Amino acid sequence: MDFASDNASGASPEVMQALMVANSGFASAYGADPWSLEAQARLSALFERPCAVFLVATGTASNALALAALTPPWGAVFAHCDAHVMGDECGAPEFFTAGAKLVGVSGDRGKIAPDALRETLAAFPIGLVKQVQASALSLSQATESGTLYTLDEIAVLTQIAHEARLQVHMDGARFANSISTLGCSPADMTWRAGVDVLSLGASKNGTIACEAVVFFNPQQAQDFAFRRKRGGHNLSKGRFLAAQMNAWLTDGHWLDLAARANAHAQTLARGLSLVEGVRLPWPVQVNEVFAILPKRIDVALKAAGVRYYDWPARRLAPTFALKPDESFVRLIASFSTPDEDVARVIEIAQTA
Amino acid sequence: MDFASDNASGASPEVMQALMVANSGFASAYGADPWSLEAQARLSALFERPCAVFLVATGTASNALALAALTPPWGAVFAHCDAHVMGDECGAPEFFTAGAKLVGVSGDRGKIAPDALRETLAAFPIGLVKQVQASALSLSQATESGTLYTLDEIAVLTQIAHEARLQVHMDGARFANSISTLGCSPADMTWRAGVDVLSLGASKNGTIACEAVVFFNPQQAQDFAFRRKRGGHNLSKGRFLAAQMNAWLTDGHWLDLAARANAHAQTLARGLSLVEGVRLPWPVQVNEVFAILPKRIDVALKAAGVRYYDWPARRLAPTFALKPDESFVRLIASFSTPDEDVARVIEIAQTA
Amino acid sequence: MDFASDNASGASPEVMQALMVANSGFASAYGADPWSLEAQARLSALFERPCAVFLVATGTASNALALAALTPPWGAVFAHCDAHVMGDECGAPEFFTAGAKLVGVSGDRGKIAPDALRETLAAFPIGLVKQVQASALSLSQATESGTLYTLDEIAVLTQIAHEARLQVHMDGARFANSISTLGCSPADMTWRAGVDVLSLGASKNGTIACEAVVFFNPQQAQDFAFRRKRGGHNLSKGRFLAAQMNAWLTDGHWLDLAARANAHAQTLARGLSLVEGVRLPWPVQVNEVFAILPKRIDVALKAAGVRYYDWPARRLAPTFALKPDESFVRLIASFSTPDEDVARVIEIAQTA
Amino acid sequence: MDFASDNASGASPEVMQALMVANSGFASAYGADPWSLEAQARLSALFERPCAVFLVATGTASNALALAALTPPWGAVFAHCDAHVMGDECGAPEFFTAGAKLVGVSGDRGKIAPDALRETLAAFPIGLVKQVQASALSLSQATESGTLYTLDEIAVLTQIAHEARLQVHMDGARFANSISTLGCSPADMTWRAGVDVLSLGASKNGTIACEAVVFFNPQQAQDFAFRRKRGGHNLSKGRFLAAQMNAWLTDGHWLDLAARANAHAQTLARGLSLVEGVRLPWPVQVNEVFAILPKRIDVALKAAGVRYYDWPARRLAPTFALKPDESFVRLIASFSTPDEDVARVIEIAQTA
Repeated sequence: MDFASDNASGASPEVMQALMVANSGFASAYGADPWSLEAQARLSALFERPCAVFLVATGTASNALALAALTPPWGAVFAHCDAHVMGDECGAPEFFTAGAKLVGVSGDRGKIAPDALRETLAAFPIGLVKQVQASALSLSQATESGTLYTLDEIAVLTQIAHEARLQVHMDGARFANSISTLGCSPADMTWRAGVDVLSLGASKNGTIACEAVVFFNPQQAQDFAFRRKRGGHNLSKGRFLAAQMNAWLTDGHWLDLAARANAHAQTLARGLSLVEGVRLPWPVQVNEVFAILPKRIDVALKAAGVRYYDWPARRLAPTFALKPDESFVRLIASFSTPDEDVARVIEIAQTA
Repeated sequence: MDFASDNASGASPEVMQALMVANSGFASAYGADPWSLEAQARLSALFERPCAVFLVATGTASNALALAALTPPWGAVFAHCDAHVMGDECGAPEFFTAGAKLVGVSGDRGKIAPDALRETLAAFPIGLVKQVQASALSLSQATESGTLYTLDEIAVLTQIAHEARLQVHMDGARFANSISTLGCSPADMTWRAGVDVLSLGASKNGTIACEAVVFFNPQQAQDFAFRRKRGGHNLSKGRFLAAQMNAWLTDGHWLDLAARANAHAQTLARGLSLVEGVRLPWPVQVNEVFAILPKRIDVALKAAGVRYYDWPARRLAPTFALKPDESFVRLIASFSTPDEDVARVIEIAQTA
Repeated sequence: MDFASDNASGASPEVMQALMVANSGFASAYGADPWSLEAQARLSALFERPCAVFLVATGTASNALALAALTPPWGAVFAHCDAHVMGDECGAPEFFTAGAKLVGVSGDRGKIAPDALRETLAAFPIGLVKQVQASALSLSQATESGTLYTLDEIAVLTQIAHEARLQVHMDGARFANSISTLGCSPADMTWRAGVDVLSLGASKNGTIACEAVVFFNPQQAQDFAFRRKRGGHNLSKGRFLAAQMNAWLTDGHWLDLAARANAHAQTLARGLSLVEGVRLPWPVQVNEVFAILPKRIDVALKAAGVRYYDWPARRLAPTFALKPDESFVRLIASFSTPDEDVARVIEIAQTA
Repeated sequence: MDFASDNASGASPEVMQALMVANSGFASAYGADPWSLEAQARLSALFERPCAVFLVATGTASNALALAALTPPWGAVFAHCDAHVMGDECGAPEFFTAGAKLVGVSGDRGKIAPDALRETLAAFPIGLVKQVQASALSLSQATESGTLYTLDEIAVLTQIAHEARLQVHMDGARFANSISTLGCSPADMTWRAGVDVLSLGASKNGTIACEAVVFFNPQQAQDFAFRRKRGGHNLSKGRFLAAQMNAWLTDGHWLDLAARANAHAQTLARGLSLVEGVRLPWPVQVNEVFAILPKRIDVALKAAGVRYYDWPARRLAPTFALKPDESFVRLIASFSTPDEDVARVIEIAQTA
């Protein structure tokens, strides 16, 4: 029973089948192949405008390369204190930007608070040479706390950013899960709400390794091919990246997979929340359940071989402060999580 | 008929099958899975000593990360003037090393000449603060000219390097093709001949995207996991990299594939060399044929839809200087090249 | 009347005289001159042990180069949230470290609180690949709030750091002012209290441009000459840096200058604190006075041509929260500040 | 008798006097002082157009920062194989450019040959993603061989560069010596001949440490203040840099100093060339004499305490190949070299 990470799951049969089909005959290397062109066209269609699309194999590369396109080395990138780009990529954004500074912005439930963003930006005057220059805002949708910004919330933040001359990046590692929950169009959640560049993740939701950096204004992408190559992220057999993306996008497959994962999380959250002593500090909006568990439940789950991560208690708001006999954990569901695993976790919690 | 690049080929059926098999159930992310452990063990067995192994998806990443482990930012890395790391990776070695200098060393047929290496090194005194410090030698086996160093030649160069306190990297993008030709053991061609770190390529020879950085002295690898992560090259679903490597190494599959590609190149070289006016400037030792063609043949081949690259005439020695009615081209065979394509190229050349 | 910055002052007559004397005859370039050797010897004597000393012309270079010697690019450097290296050097530490992360640690009065350091470090597990690795602690003595750590406080923090395998840097931009106040030996305030590398500043206190990076363990400095050269900080006519340092160190000149500046600040602080409505949020321990002024006084001072900086109110503890009719300002005294300027500021404040 | 380096000399009395005068009263820090404004105005007047001027303390910083403004990290900078930026700055250009590649271009007498530049550029196709992109040309005037480009030669090279979309940097470490010899206007030798950015050196010719980066198109300089600050090259007491520059430029002082140094070199060259066995491989055009000496003379000079450097024989053209009993050396004269030292060197050579 594995609830440790979306990455513990494999790929969907449809995606694997597409890989097999793509493995036929010869194709130009380094992205000059029909699959890659198709991916570009499919994503432009999905986002309802011509996009510049660059496929890479990891989310870290996707985020770090995108940010590097938005900030000079003497720039500051603003992201939520708990964002993945802040603390979970071993400094990849700093590496790819040649040393830009990532500045944490606070906010409840993993979401940047508009006032906090305004206040933080106020400490970075434009043109003051002794300070790094505010350059980009990175929003995670869904957030590292498994929560979602509404479209209006995104629009408010991107407006603050644009007024301060920042560009806006969206870390969409769980983009599909977010769209599935919000039920809006990809365009509405991104460029129509003010997002300039999107890191669109497919690896966590049904592919083996496929991420797209999507520029809604292709002009901003003019140097990106060099950045990607120089970072070692231009796969020689590009068709195998693109074939995954194409299959994933076909007939709403990506949303089917996300809906399944999200539904598992809802079931899990509902079941756990009914267990005495279990507290859910944040709303469950995608495929992640963050739960404060009585330690006896934590022990019972682990004893039963359920895999999941402990989560840092410092991220909890004071109203959810951890008590000595409690554990704070994260359980992640995927499209491939068996129904019975979800049921079993709830059952163990109920009887622990 | 595609002779443009090893990367134009897909993966072998065995490797694809392994991917399908690996796509079952859950596995720990980021390389903490059984497939990755198996790859580590298989490569250690192959090289007859415990190795530290890091899988990545591209050859550029493999080379650049390996070099970064061997040189400080104020170091110099020596490689053949025509080496892939010198001019074909958009400065990735400079990026990953944080600005080390790549210094070209000359030599016929794509191979570094020992005297040229000695002379070049003499211009980099140890400890002279105004100059970058000689830190690493990068050998390509096979070379960018499709030629091979003998084991003795490798040993001579690595000895010069070690005496000057340099560490030695081998760019083994066509490692399998090289071993297939030389018939020696992987250990003999690497650490027993003085190589410290190997970039072992599988992507060009039967996998979809799989390269291994192999440290023969695991102590030198202690920071490598951070470098890889920070570069965005730690794939979240590591099992899919390792599954490729494991299948590739099983039952000599890698050598079978390489032998097929090499044999095609031999057939092609033999056939072309018998055509009036065709000149082969370099011995054909792996799966690449570099040929000086009368322009009429070049035109006829292209008209027939044969894909291949023109190659820079400046790389030819004076005895092979290009005449006005000649083209200099590179044809690459792969394990999947059909016999009839090879035959057809020769036939076109004969009748052009 | 200039209280804007220590850098608004010139150099002492003694230092200028030494420059004139040094400008005689020929001397080896790039630090291989007798003056530079003397500086090395003088500083080793001052610190009562053999030190590796590197002179540079700016405090930013001194700090950033020193930190780069203590952390890999995937490292984290911990400093007080308000430290100069955090926000006043345009990302120089990130540049020289090739992208390390600077992590702010909280604490009252500009001083890192031991518990805050422990808690922050706990969030950076050793060896966790997805996170940057805790590598160095940077302490500012005096702090950016003009306060001082006691020797015991330094020892507590360096012990926490060393136990977590960090090395300790001290930003001693106002080192002389600190020693002057504490009355201890330079050795006691640095290596005997656990400091590994010191950025010793003389520019703010009597020289035109002279800073020393002092390694108490010369072994750690083995690459530093390359770092300095590569950063463009190895002055060609090194004698002119060293001559400043030597004159500054001669016969306690550096402490005389610092004592004068500190005394001015004390006078200023005492005078202002007696004015109705003036509040001093932090103890005045070196040559800086941070004051909350009734706006009428702020206006009067500026109208009289007194130069000083407004300071960010967000740095104030809640008990000193700024009221609408107040300004928060920083006044800095130097060795060359005229007594009458200090008296005049107090007088204006009293009568405003 | 010191002929080792221009940097072995001190500063001129006029420059030292200006430093003393500048050390009076208070001045705004970080370049916002009247001296710095004056330097900006003086240099704009000197170059007959509004320039953006940035003062720094070292030539390495001046060159590396200027190049960083002209190339992205994935760019290539072309310079003569023997240029100072290629091999004498410990990789500073690579550091400041975040890893751009410096590409050597050949040419006799230290001067880039137009055909060699064209051929080299031809190997860097615009837009080819696997290769770094040709971005800048760096010309040294005078060259590392002590020779000068004529104005026409500069114009030819800058035209080739501009047609290939490169920008042009001039390393003017010995700018004054060059102008003194050519007798042209500073504008003629720079922007009128196609130079975009100049590193104007004063340190080697009469100041203690003062260099200016001069942008002839101020628009290109918009990020430069951040680059300089981030590199630690924004001196806190900027008046002391600017005071040097202003004194140096006053009443043709810079040209007087250069003329003196150049005249010494002419005398030395004439005297040595008349000695049997002495060969001068390159014309002596500034303050440097490169001489092939019979070893007996080399020995005699060194025995007499004359300081100078051996120079790499590999830089000699075949017609000047070094014989076993010869030494190849560089002697540098400065404005402060005593006449009698020049005479004594010639005398020793004559009698050795």
